[in-house]
Amino acid sequence: MNRSSLLRVLADVQTGALTPEAASDALAHLPFEDAGFATIDHHRSLRSGMPEVIFASGKTAEQTSEIFLRLARTGVNVLATRVDVAAYMLIQKHSPAAVFHELSGAVTLEQGNVQVPAGKVTVICAGTSDLPIAEEAAVTATLFGAQVDRINDVGVAGIHRLLAHRERIAAADAIVVCAGMEGALPSVVGGMVAVPVVAVPTSVGYGASFAGAAALLGMLNSCSPNVTVVNIDNGFGAGYAASTINLNIHNYLQ
Amino acid sequence: MNRSSLLRVLADVQTGALTPEAASDALAHLPFEDAGFATIDHHRSLRSGMPEVIFASGKTAEQTSEIFLRLARTGVNVLATRVDVAAYMLIQKHSPAAVFHELSGAVTLEQGNVQVPAGKVTVICAGTSDLPIAEEAAVTATLFGAQVDRINDVGVAGIHRLLAHRERIAAADAIVVCAGMEGALPSVVGGMVAVPVVAVPTSVGYGASFAGAAALLGMLNSCSPNVTVVNIDNGFGAGYAASTINLNIHNYLQ
Amino acid sequence: MNRSSLLRVLADVQTGALTPEAASDALAHLPFEDAGFATIDHHRSLRSGMPEVIFASGKTAEQTSEIFLRLARTGVNVLATRVDVAAYMLIQKHSPAAVFHELSGAVTLEQGNVQVPAGKVTVICAGTSDLPIAEEAAVTATLFGAQVDRINDVGVAGIHRLLAHRERIAAADAIVVCAGMEGALPSVVGGMVAVPVVAVPTSVGYGASFAGAAALLGMLNSCSPNVTVVNIDNGFGAGYAASTINLNIHNYLQ
Amino acid sequence: MNRSSLLRVLADVQTGALTPEAASDALAHLPFEDAGFATIDHHRSLRSGMPEVIFASGKTAEQTSEIFLRLARTGVNVLATRVDVAAYMLIQKHSPAAVFHELSGAVTLEQGNVQVPAGKVTVICAGTSDLPIAEEAAVTATLFGAQVDRINDVGVAGIHRLLAHRERIAAADAIVVCAGMEGALPSVVGGMVAVPVVAVPTSVGYGASFAGAAALLGMLNSCSPNVTVVNIDNGFGAGYAASTINLNIHNYLQ
Amino acid sequence: MNRSSLLRVLADVQTGALTPEAASDALAHLPFEDAGFATIDHHRSLRSGMPEVIFASGKTAEQTSEIFLRLARTGVNVLATRVDVAAYMLIQKHSPAAVFHELSGAVTLEQGNVQVPAGKVTVICAGTSDLPIAEEAAVTATLFGAQVDRINDVGVAGIHRLLAHRERIAAADAIVVCAGMEGALPSVVGGMVAVPVVAVPTSVGYGASFAGAAALLGMLNSCSPNVTVVNIDNGFGAGYAASTINLNIHNYLQ
Amino acid sequence: MNRSSLLRVLADVQTGALTPEAASDALAHLPFEDAGFATIDHHRSLRSGMPEVIFASGKTAEQTSEIFLRLARTGVNVLATRVDVAAYMLIQKHSPAAVFHELSGAVTLEQGNVQVPAGKVTVICAGTSDLPIAEEAAVTATLFGAQVDRINDVGVAGIHRLLAHRERIAAADAIVVCAGMEGALPSVVGGMVAVPVVAVPTSVGYGASFAGAAALLGMLNSCSPNVTVVNIDNGFGAGYAASTINLNIHNYLQ
Amino acid sequence: MNRSSLLRVLADVQTGALTPEAASDALAHLPFEDAGFATIDHHRSLRSGMPEVIFASGKTAEQTSEIFLRLARTGVNVLATRVDVAAYMLIQKHSPAAVFHELSGAVTLEQGNVQVPAGKVTVICAGTSDLPIAEEAAVTATLFGAQVDRINDVGVAGIHRLLAHRERIAAADAIVVCAGMEGALPSVVGGMVAVPVVAVPTSVGYGASFAGAAALLGMLNSCSPNVTVVNIDNGFGAGYAASTINLNIHNYLQ
Amino acid sequence: MNRSSLLRVLADVQTGALTPEAASDALAHLPFEDAGFATIDHHRSLRSGMPEVIFASGKTAEQTSEIFLRLARTGVNVLATRVDVAAYMLIQKHSPAAVFHELSGAVTLEQGNVQVPAGKVTVICAGTSDLPIAEEAAVTATLFGAQVDRINDVGVAGIHRLLAHRERIAAADAIVVCAGMEGALPSVVGGMVAVPVVAVPTSVGYGASFAGAAALLGMLNSCSPNVTVVNIDNGFGAGYAASTINLNIHNYLQ
Repeated sequence: MNRSSLLRVLADVQTGALTPEAASDALAHLPFEDAGFATIDHHRSLRSGMPEVIFASGKTAEQTSEIFLRLARTGVNVLATRVDVAAYMLIQKHSPAAVFHELSGAVTLEQGNVQVPAGKVTVICAGTSDLPIAEEAAVTATLFGAQVDRINDVGVAGIHRLLAHRERIAAADAIVVCAGMEGALPSVVGGMVAVPVVAVPTSVGYGASFAGAAALLGMLNSCSPNVTVVNIDNGFGAGYAASTINLNIHNYLQ
Repeated sequence: MNRSSLLRVLADVQTGALTPEAASDALAHLPFEDAGFATIDHHRSLRSGMPEVIFASGKTAEQTSEIFLRLARTGVNVLATRVDVAAYMLIQKHSPAAVFHELSGAVTLEQGNVQVPAGKVTVICAGTSDLPIAEEAAVTATLFGAQVDRINDVGVAGIHRLLAHRERIAAADAIVVCAGMEGALPSVVGGMVAVPVVAVPTSVGYGASFAGAAALLGMLNSCSPNVTVVNIDNGFGAGYAASTINLNIHNYLQ
Repeated sequence: MNRSSLLRVLADVQTGALTPEAASDALAHLPFEDAGFATIDHHRSLRSGMPEVIFASGKTAEQTSEIFLRLARTGVNVLATRVDVAAYMLIQKHSPAAVFHELSGAVTLEQGNVQVPAGKVTVICAGTSDLPIAEEAAVTATLFGAQVDRINDVGVAGIHRLLAHRERIAAADAIVVCAGMEGALPSVVGGMVAVPVVAVPTSVGYGASFAGAAALLGMLNSCSPNVTVVNIDNGFGAGYAASTINLNIHNYLQ
Repeated sequence: MNRSSLLRVLADVQTGALTPEAASDALAHLPFEDAGFATIDHHRSLRSGMPEVIFASGKTAEQTSEIFLRLARTGVNVLATRVDVAAYMLIQKHSPAAVFHELSGAVTLEQGNVQVPAGKVTVICAGTSDLPIAEEAAVTATLFGAQVDRINDVGVAGIHRLLAHRERIAAADAIVVCAGMEGALPSVVGGMVAVPVVAVPTSVGYGASFAGAAALLGMLNSCSPNVTVVNIDNGFGAGYAASTINLNIHNYLQ
Repeated sequence: MNRSSLLRVLADVQTGALTPEAASDALAHLPFEDAGFATIDHHRSLRSGMPEVIFASGKTAEQTSEIFLRLARTGVNVLATRVDVAAYMLIQKHSPAAVFHELSGAVTLEQGNVQVPAGKVTVICAGTSDLPIAEEAAVTATLFGAQVDRINDVGVAGIHRLLAHRERIAAADAIVVCAGMEGALPSVVGGMVAVPVVAVPTSVGYGASFAGAAALLGMLNSCSPNVTVVNIDNGFGAGYAASTINLNIHNYLQ
Repeated sequence: MNRSSLLRVLADVQTGALTPEAASDALAHLPFEDAGFATIDHHRSLRSGMPEVIFASGKTAEQTSEIFLRLARTGVNVLATRVDVAAYMLIQKHSPAAVFHELSGAVTLEQGNVQVPAGKVTVICAGTSDLPIAEEAAVTATLFGAQVDRINDVGVAGIHRLLAHRERIAAADAIVVCAGMEGALPSVVGGMVAVPVVAVPTSVGYGASFAGAAALLGMLNSCSPNVTVVNIDNGFGAGYAASTINLNIHNYLQ
Repeated sequence: MNRSSLLRVLADVQTGALTPEAASDALAHLPFEDAGFATIDHHRSLRSGMPEVIFASGKTAEQTSEIFLRLARTGVNVLATRVDVAAYMLIQKHSPAAVFHELSGAVTLEQGNVQVPAGKVTVICAGTSDLPIAEEAAVTATLFGAQVDRINDVGVAGIHRLLAHRERIAAADAIVVCAGMEGALPSVVGGMVAVPVVAVPTSVGYGASFAGAAALLGMLNSCSPNVTVVNIDNGFGAGYAASTINLNIHNYLQ
Repeated sequence: MNRSSLLRVLADVQTGALTPEAASDALAHLPFEDAGFATIDHHRSLRSGMPEVIFASGKTAEQTSEIFLRLARTGVNVLATRVDVAAYMLIQKHSPAAVFHELSGAVTLEQGNVQVPAGKVTVICAGTSDLPIAEEAAVTATLFGAQVDRINDVGVAGIHRLLAHRERIAAADAIVVCAGMEGALPSVVGGMVAVPVVAVPTSVGYGASFAGAAALLGMLNSCSPNVTVVNIDNGFGAGYAASTINLNIHNYLQ
C-alpha cells in the first residue's frame, strides 16, 4: 500500500465518505505489510517482464502445471526449474509457447515486455557433467535480461583451456562458475577478473566429494575475494544472483 | 603484454633491430601471463587508488609491518586485516597516517587518489557480538570507495527492529549481512530488496553452532535467491565482494 | 501397585489368609514397576480418550494393520503415522471408521470418549513442501484434543506474509513451526509470541541442507528462547509435545 | 499500534484536527511493527516483573555491567547469564542487591513486582558435572516465577537412583533434564510423566561425545514424544522454555 | 607349522634324509606364518564344531552358494549372514539341512560336533524394528554354542518393561543389547549387571539418527563401564563377541 | 531388598510385631529398587575388594580428595583416574597409602581384601604416545584383580615387532589394544587370538585423525569380529571391561 | 608452441614473408598456452602409446561411445572406466578390438605402439569385495605399460595371509593397496617395503564405514610414511599414479 | 634371518653340532620376522646413509634429545621433526653438528655416507603461511638425498605467478605441493606435468577450512590423476614419499 492509496482512504474519511471505523477496517483488511513488499514485487514483475519462478522439484506434474498456468495468466514471463517431461507435457497443453530446456530441465515462457538483453553474464563450467547446472544458470540469466556467454569444460587440470578464453571472460559484467570435485575453478577465474564471481558447487564427483560438500568447502575458502558461493547444484540461484548484479549495473531495477 | 608492445618487438625484428633469436628471448623473458594479469592488477591499483590487502592473521608483527611498508611505498592505499596492537605499533612508526580500527582490528592507510565515495553498501548485523566482523566489512567497503551505512543489532527474533530500517535498507546498491547462531537474517533481508545480498556467517554462538557452521548452512540454504555466501567470519571478503558489485555499478573499474 | 492393594495383601498376612511366603510370591509376581507406570498409562488412555500411537514406517502393511486392530479393540482412539495406502486398505477392512489423512499419511480412529477440543495449537509451515510434516502435527494435535489452526507457506523470504497472520498467531496456546532449508521461521515466530514454540526441521531442500541438518542446526541455535526442537520431519512429535503443553493448560491430564 | 490509537488518528482526520497528509506522516512515523511487538514486550516486562536477560559470554565486564545497569534502572527484574567474577564486581557497585549464583555464573536482580511462585518446574541432571547447566536452568525458572525442584546425579547407569524420585518427578508442571555423555536421561524421564520435558544436552564428556553432539543427537532421537530439545549447554533456554510452559498453565502471561 | 613338524624336518636333516639346502627350501615353502595362525584356526573349527562365517551382503547368490558349499564340505558348521531368498534357494539345493532364519536373513548349517549349549547369552532389543539385528546376534550366539535368551521391545521410554526382566538379565554370562534412535538401552542394562554388555547401535530411526550414528555415539559415551560397542547393525559381530566371552568362561576354546 | 529381608518384614506382620500400615511404610521407605541394584553393588565391593572409581577430570582437587576420602573410609579399594598432582597431594594427606601412577594420572588405594591376581589381561599399545591410555587400562585391570601383561610400541607399520610377541599375546584371557592414528592394531591382534579384544582409540595423531575419530572409525569397522570398542582415550573403560571378562572367567563376581 | 615454431614465425617476419601485423595475428591465434601444455600432452600420447581416458560414469551410453570413437580414431590406446554393458555394446560396433573387463567395468583398446611392459606394479586388495576397484587399478596400470601382479584377499585380520606374499610384494616398483572397512592394509604393506604405496580406500563396509570415509581416514593417518592416498573407490587414479611412478623409473616418459 | 644363517643352523644339525631340539629352539628364539624386516631396515640405513626419523611432537625435550642421541651414535643421519628450541638446545649439547631448521622446526644431523644428491624434488607452496609445512618437506627430501627446488607463494588466485615457473616445475622427478584454504594448487600443478605430485593439505585458513579439512577434500577430489594425498600438515610424509619416488628412479634403494 503506497502513500497515494493511503492518502485516498484518509481523504475519504475527511470528506465523510468513510467513517473512521470503516477506514480502520479498510486499512486492516488491506495487506499492509504485504503492500510494503509483495505489491512492489508484483508490480515490478508486471512492469519489467521479470519472470516469476517455480521450483518444480518435489511437486507433482499437476501441481507444477497449475502454478505455471496461474502465473502465465498474469502476463509475466515464467521460469520453472527442475521440471520433468511429464510436467512439461501438461504445461505445454495450456501454454504452447513454453520452451523446455532439456539439459537443465528448465521451462521458460516469454510473453510481452521482453527487453533487449543488457550486460553480459558469463557462465563457466569445469566439466561436461556440470553442464545441467550451468545451463540452469544460463537459462535463468537469459530470462532475467542478460546476454549470456557459455564457456564449458575448462577445468583446472588443464589450465591452458581456461586461459584460452581470457578475453571472453574479461568482458563479463558478472560471472557464474560451476564446478564439482575439488571446486577449484572459481578461485582461478576470480583471480583473472575484477567483477563478481558467483560460485556454484556441483554434486559431480564420488567418494570424498561427499555429494558436493568438497567443492562447496573449496569455494567458501577461495583465496579470490570477489568469489561468493551458493548452495550445491543451485544453478538457478547463481543465475539469479548474477542477473541481479548485472541488472543493477544496467539500471533495469532502479 | 598487450598487442602494441608485441607489435613493437615484431617491428624491431622486421627492421633488423632485433634478430629472431633475440626477439624470441625477449618474448620469453617478458612475464607474458604475468603481463596478462598481474600488470593489470598493479596498474589498476596505482590508477584507481584501490588498496592492496594484507591478511595479518598468522603473520608476525614484523612480517605484517614489513609488507605494509613495502606496499605503502608504492603510493597505493593499504588495508591490513586482523592486525593486533603490536603489529599496529610497528606500522605506525613508518606509516604514521595509518589508522587502527579497533573493533575489527583493521588498519587502513589512505594516500592520494582518493575518490569521492560512490554508491552505497549497507552493512547489517544481527547482534552486537557480530560487530567486529561487520566492522571489517564496513572498513573494507569504505576503503574501496563505497559510502557505507551500518545497521546493527537487528536479529530476526525481534523482526520489528529490522523492519524499522526498511527505507535505509532499500537504498543500498549492495548489502552485507553478518549473523551468527541460526544465521537467518540474510534470508529476511534478501526478501526485502532487489539488490545482491552478501551473507557472512559469524562464529558467534556456542554448542550446536559448531563455530559458525550452523549459520553457514542456514545461509547456503537461503530461500532468497539474491543471497550469496562467503566463509565464516570473512567480513573482508564480504566487504570486498559488495564493493566489487558497487564499483561495477558506478563504473570505477571499467 | 498402589498403597491400598499393598495394604490388602499385608492385611491378609495379618489375618493369616496369606502366609508370608505366599505373600512374598504375590508381591513378586505383581508387575510392581509396571504398576508404577504402565498401568497408569493404560488407564489414562481408556479414561481420557487419548489415542494410542503406531509408527508404521518400517512395518509391513500386515503388521501395521494387526497392531491397529489390537489397539482399536480396547476402545481407545488410535493414531497411526506414515501409513501407506496398502496398509490403510487392510486397516479399513476391520476398522471402517478409520480416516486416512492423505497428505501426511496418518490414519486416525475416533471412538467414544471424544472431548470438545480445548485450547488452540497453531501449526505454521514455511513452504508448501513442508505441508506433509505440518499436517502430521496438525492431525496429531487434533486427535489429542486441541483446536488446530493451520497457517501455510509463510517463509521468511517474504516476511510480510507471516506478519499478516499476527493475530491468529498471538491466539495460540502452543505453536508448531515446520521449516526446511535454512529453518529460520521458528526464530521469527518465537520473537512474536509469549507461548512455547516447538520447531520441526524438515528434510525439504537439497545440497547443503544435508537432508534437514541445516534446518535442525538453525533451530537449535535460535535466538528466541521459547523455541525448542524435535527431530527432522518429526511432525508427530511436535504435535504431541504441543498437545501436552496445551492439555496441561486446559487440565485434561491432571 | 493497536486499533484504538488508529481510530484516534482517524477521528482527528474526521474532525479536521489532522489533514490527510499529516495523518499519513503520523502513521508513517509511528513505529508500527515496533508497536506491534516491542511495545508489548516492554509493557509485559514492567507489568509482570518478568526479567530482562543478558547473555554475558563474549561481552567485556564493562559492557555487561552497563547493560545490566540500564535494564535495572527501568525497575524490572534482571537476569545475566555466564557472568564472570570481574563483571559481577562491577555490577555490584551500582546494583548492590544483585545476587551472584556461583555455580552457574548467573546474576539476578529482583526489584518489585515479585509474584508468589506458581507451578513447579523440576530440574533434573544426570551427573555432578552437569550441575552448572542445571543450575542456570533453575535460576532462570525461579526468576520467571516458578517454584523449582532440583534432582541431581540420577544418571541412567544406576536407574534405581532415578526411580527413587518418582513422586517428586510426577509432581512437576514442566521438567528440565540436563545430561551429557550419552544423553539418555530425558527419554527415561519422558516415559515416566505426562508433562513436557525440555532436554538440555551438556558438553560434559570427552572423545566421541564431540563436545555434546552425542548427547544432542541422543535427545533429538528420543523415543519419548514429550521430549523437546534445546542447544548444547543452553540451561537458560531450557529454564526459559519450561517457565513459559509453566506460566501459561498458571495464567501469568495471558 | 607347529613344533612337531619342524622337529620332523630337522630330524631328517640329522639323519641325512634331507640336505641343509633341501631343508631350507622346505622350510621356505611351508607357509610358516600361516602355520602360526591359519592352521590353528582350521583345526579349531574342525575340532570344536565352531562355524565358519560368510558375510553374504554384496556377494551374488552364486558366489554365496559356492562358498557355502566349499565350507560345508569340510564338515564344519556354517553360518552365512544377510542372505537373500535367491541365495538360500541355491544353498538349499546342495545343503538341504541348511536352515533359513527369515527375520535376520541368516542361514545356518549344523553338521556333527554339536556341543550341548553352555553358558547363557542374553540378547535384548529396544524396539520391534531392531529385531532383525538382534536375531542375527541370537542366531550367531546359538551356533557358537551358547544358550540364548531373547528379551524384546524393552526401550527406555517405558523403563518398567525392562525392569520386569531383571532376573533373566541377571542370569546372563554375556549380554548383547541392540538399540536404534537414541541408543540408551545399553547404559541402563549395563548398570543392572556385572557381566560384559556388547552394545549394537542399529540404523533404526530417521532424521537426526543419521542412519545409526546417533545410537553409536550414545553407546560409545555410555556411563556404564562394562559396555563395549560394535559397528552399526553388526548383530553378527556382537553375537560373536558375546559368544567369545561366553566360551572362554565355559572353556570351549582353551 | 532381597527375599529374606522381605520375608522378615512379612513375618513381623504375621506375628503382629508390625501392623500392615507400619509394614507398608517400612516397605515404602526401603530403597526398593535401590536395594535391587545399589545395595548389591555396595556389598559386592565390600565383600570382594572391588574398587570404587572416581573420574577426577573436571572436578576440583578438593572435590576429588573429598570423594576419595569418603570412599576410602568404607574400607574398599579406591581408583581415581585423571588426577593431577595437586589433587594427589591432598589425597596423600588423608590416605598416605594411596599410590600415584604418574604416566596415566591414576591414583590407587589398596586396603584389605586383596585377592591373588587371577587370569591375565594383556594391554598392548601401538606407539609410545598411547602409553598414558594403555597405562590407565593396566592400572585399572590390576586393581580389579587381573595379572596384567604390557606390550608397548608394536604398531602395524612394523608388523614383525608385534609378531615377536605372539606367545605372550596368545596367553591372555582378555586383551586391551590402544592405538591412535589409523587405529589398525586391534584388527591385527584380533586375528591372532580367540579371546575378546577391547579396542581403545586414542587421540594421538594430528590433522585428519580428528582427535581420535579416525582411529575410532577404524576400530568400529574391524574385520576381526572379536573386537569391541570403547570411547576415545577411555583406558579406564577398556581396563574395566577386560577385567569384567576376566573376572567372569575366574569366578570372582559370581 | 615451442621455440622452434616461434623462431620460424619470427624468421618469416625478418624475411618479410610476414608483416608484423600478420605475425601478431598468427601468434594471437595460435593456442599459445595450449601449445605450452596440451600439445605436449597430445604428442606424448601419440608417441608413447599412452592411453587417453574416459570416465564413463554419469555419461549416457551414446556419449561414452562417441568419445571413445573420437579418441580411437587418433590411433592411441583408449581406456574407459565404469562402463556399463549397454555402452560397451555401442563401443564394440565401431571398435571391435575393444576389450570389456567385466569385474571393473573398464574397456580398453590397444592399437599400435604397444611397448613391452616394464617395471612391476603390484595391486593388493584386502577382501574379495574390493576386487572391482583393485581390478580397475590393475587394468589401468597394464594399459599404461606396467607388468601387473595381483594379490587378493589378504586383509589384516589374518596377517599370515599377507606375510606369505612377502617376496612378491618386495619385488614391486610401485604398489597399489585397496581396502575398505578399517583400511588398515596399506600401513602394514607400507611397513614391509621401501617403494611408494598408493592407498585406495573403498566404499566396502556398512554402518560406521560411512561409505568409505573410515577407510579413507585410516589411510590418511597411516604411520607408514611411504603411503599416499587417493579418493574413495578411485582405482583408476591409483593405477595411474602407480604407473606414473613406474614409468618414471623405467624412463618411458622422460 | 636370511638364508645363509638358516643354512648355518641346518649345517650344524647335519654335523651333529646341534640336536634337532636345540635347533628348533634356536630357530624359535631368533627374531624371524624381525629379521625379515627390521634387520633389513637397519642395514639399509647404515649402508645408504638414509636418516632415522623422530616425530618430536608430544615428546618432552628430554625424550627427544635421548632418542636423537641413541640414533646419532649408530652413525646414521638423523631427522627430527617438530622440535622446539628447548629440545634443540639439549640435542646440541651432545650433537653439536645438528642443524636447526627454524622455519619448520626440523633438526638434521648428517654424518658420513652422504651421497651426492640425485634427482630433483620440487616443493611448491600456495601461500607464505604454508611455508613451515613446505620447509618440512624440503628438509626431509634433502636429507633423503634429493636435490630440492623450492617455489613459494604461487596460489591459484594469481595463476600467472605459477605459470611463470613452468620450466622449473617440468624439471622435477617428483613434486610436493602444499596448500591450505581451498587446496586447489595440486590439481593445477598436476595438469602441468607427467610426474607424481604428492599433495599436502595445510591447516592454513579459518572458518569453513575446518582446520585443513576443506583443502584435504579438495585434493582427494583432484581431477589430475597423478595427484596423491597425505595427511593435513604432513610435510614430512610428503617429503618422504616424494623422496621414495625419487630414490627409486635413481637407484639408491635397490
